[in-house]
Amino acid sequence: MADYTIGMDLGGTNLRAAAIDKNGRMLDKISGCTNFVEGREAVLSDIVAAIAKLRETHGSAGLAGIGIGVPGFIRMKEGLITGSNNLPYLEGVPIRDEISHRLGTAVFLENDANAAALGEKWKGAGQNVDDLVLLTLGTGIGGGIISGGRVLRGFVGMAGELGHMTVVPNGNPCGCGNQGCLEKHASATAVTAMARLMQLGEELSSKDVAELAAQHGEAGEKARTIWRIVGESLGIALATLINTFNFPLYLLSGGMLPAWELFAPHMMRVAKERSFTFRATAHETTIAQATLGNEAGLYGAACLPWVE
Amino acid sequence: MADYTIGMDLGGTNLRAAAIDKNGRMLDKISGCTNFVEGREAVLSDIVAAIAKLRETHGSAGLAGIGIGVPGFIRMKEGLITGSNNLPYLEGVPIRDEISHRLGTAVFLENDANAAALGEKWKGAGQNVDDLVLLTLGTGIGGGIISGGRVLRGFVGMAGELGHMTVVPNGNPCGCGNQGCLEKHASATAVTAMARLMQLGEELSSKDVAELAAQHGEAGEKARTIWRIVGESLGIALATLINTFNFPLYLLSGGMLPAWELFAPHMMRVAKERSFTFRATAHETTIAQATLGNEAGLYGAACLPWVE
Repeated sequence: MADYTIGMDLGGTNLRAAAIDKNGRMLDKISGCTNFVEGREAVLSDIVAAIAKLRETHGSAGLAGIGIGVPGFIRMKEGLITGSNNLPYLEGVPIRDEISHRLGTAVFLENDANAAALGEKWKGAGQNVDDLVLLTLGTGIGGGIISGGRVLRGFVGMAGELGHMTVVPNGNPCGCGNQGCLEKHASATAVTAMARLMQLGEELSSKDVAELAAQHGEAGEKARTIWRIVGESLGIALATLINTFNFPLYLLSGGMLPAWELFAPHMMRVAKERSFTFRATAHETTIAQATLGNEAGLYGAACLPWVE
Repeated sequence: MADYTIGMDLGGTNLRAAAIDKNGRMLDKISGCTNFVEGREAVLSDIVAAIAKLRETHGSAGLAGIGIGVPGFIRMKEGLITGSNNLPYLEGVPIRDEISHRLGTAVFLENDANAAALGEKWKGAGQNVDDLVLLTLGTGIGGGIISGGRVLRGFVGMAGELGHMTVVPNGNPCGCGNQGCLEKHASATAVTAMARLMQLGEELSSKDVAELAAQHGEAGEKARTIWRIVGESLGIALATLINTFNFPLYLLSGGMLPAWELFAPHMMRVAKERSFTFRATAHETTIAQATLGNEAGLYGAACLPWVE
């Protein structure tokens, strides 16, 4: 009887995989590098080997399926990745069917932020709701929407690209062709760029800028301005999301969370100012930190065979 | 055997109701005024009388239920309207249960734009899709989201308030407390206000401004600028919606549609510029005019007993 699944989180430089049972208990976890310099075949082999290793330990009989979270857009029907800056060598390859074929097991592909949102719904901060939005604040900003307990994907699989919501119509240019995308004003990359523009330093990380914000004087003031801009940009996006979805829960995750105290007050203020729905449902609408960290994607990927 | 429903569209100054069969054939339609100066009881009596009249003609036995589209936010659980500028006298009254009680039939309440979106999905421009977004361009801008063939409502019933998406962060102030809401830059009211600001005239309708746009000279130039702003504002909102939902269809309806040729080219250009998802799925993603006009709300309201 199938009682566990394998979830994989495939990144540009590494892969992680976990065997997780039907109740969401993590049985086993492995990680490794994605040998992308060695090309497509090497990466596919690494993926298959990692999964096979977990399956060997936990048995073929009990394996209900495999879920893989990947950066970039999925074309669900074809089971391939498009427009991924991080995995160019897998671009256009029908990896779902290829991996499924090599392993002889059902494989489900999902965008990594969508998988993280599903993971938070299954075992994280969203356990008590059926509907939530997750924003992943990292070098970019990803989005995942869970509606009625399932990933809202859109007809191609490209839904939830919330990092590309326009928050400043004449704002910073984005690689996607737009100007003023949320991720150009509220990601770690945006924080570094703003620190440079404000002559705080050339290559400051969001952690550096968070530390600067504790200082007195001009540098501290500038750093606090940056976090205000981050918070206000997120507030604009969240207000639009709340007005659009009227969901009970909006989660934030990713490498920017340690700076929560610096940006969240601005974010909350602006979301309240800009969304009457938020004000009207203040006691029923929650904006909060996700709780699974970078395990969310593993849980979400592992959840796919159960919910699809 | 139940084979028809009654759909009602309740506005600030009038009500319309129709008996529509299970296949979406309109059997009968009536309209009247909402006697709001005479107060709550008079309006409730008018609603009940209109429905009773249709039921008398078409029979109690075949009536599967009643759907009512109303402006404002619905609190679905309680079956009442909140935050409606047009129906203040029904504010906070449990009208769903009250009407159901008086008529002895199941009643479904829905926001009017949500009902229109459902109507377009059932019998209008959205018949061939399961997922669509509708923007109603009138004195304000309403929104309706159909996901998997059903209205996306949110947990209170306030989802789809797309007229209050922020498109210009420091833009025109809105009654909702926000600045730069879509409806403050792209509704008929916004067109009138821009015409005034540009000294084209004090109380020009969107139809007047559309006629001016055909003129040579300064007034024509100003009017065309207004339609460009309308189109660009809609384009920003649509780009965000396409990036968020990746649905195949985005419809526009309402009193502004006669000016389509004036604003739509700008709207399409900006939506394309700002949404890589739109560009990547250009042949599969459609932005188009809704086709049912103001009957959409009747069809959608009548559809509610079948789909809920």
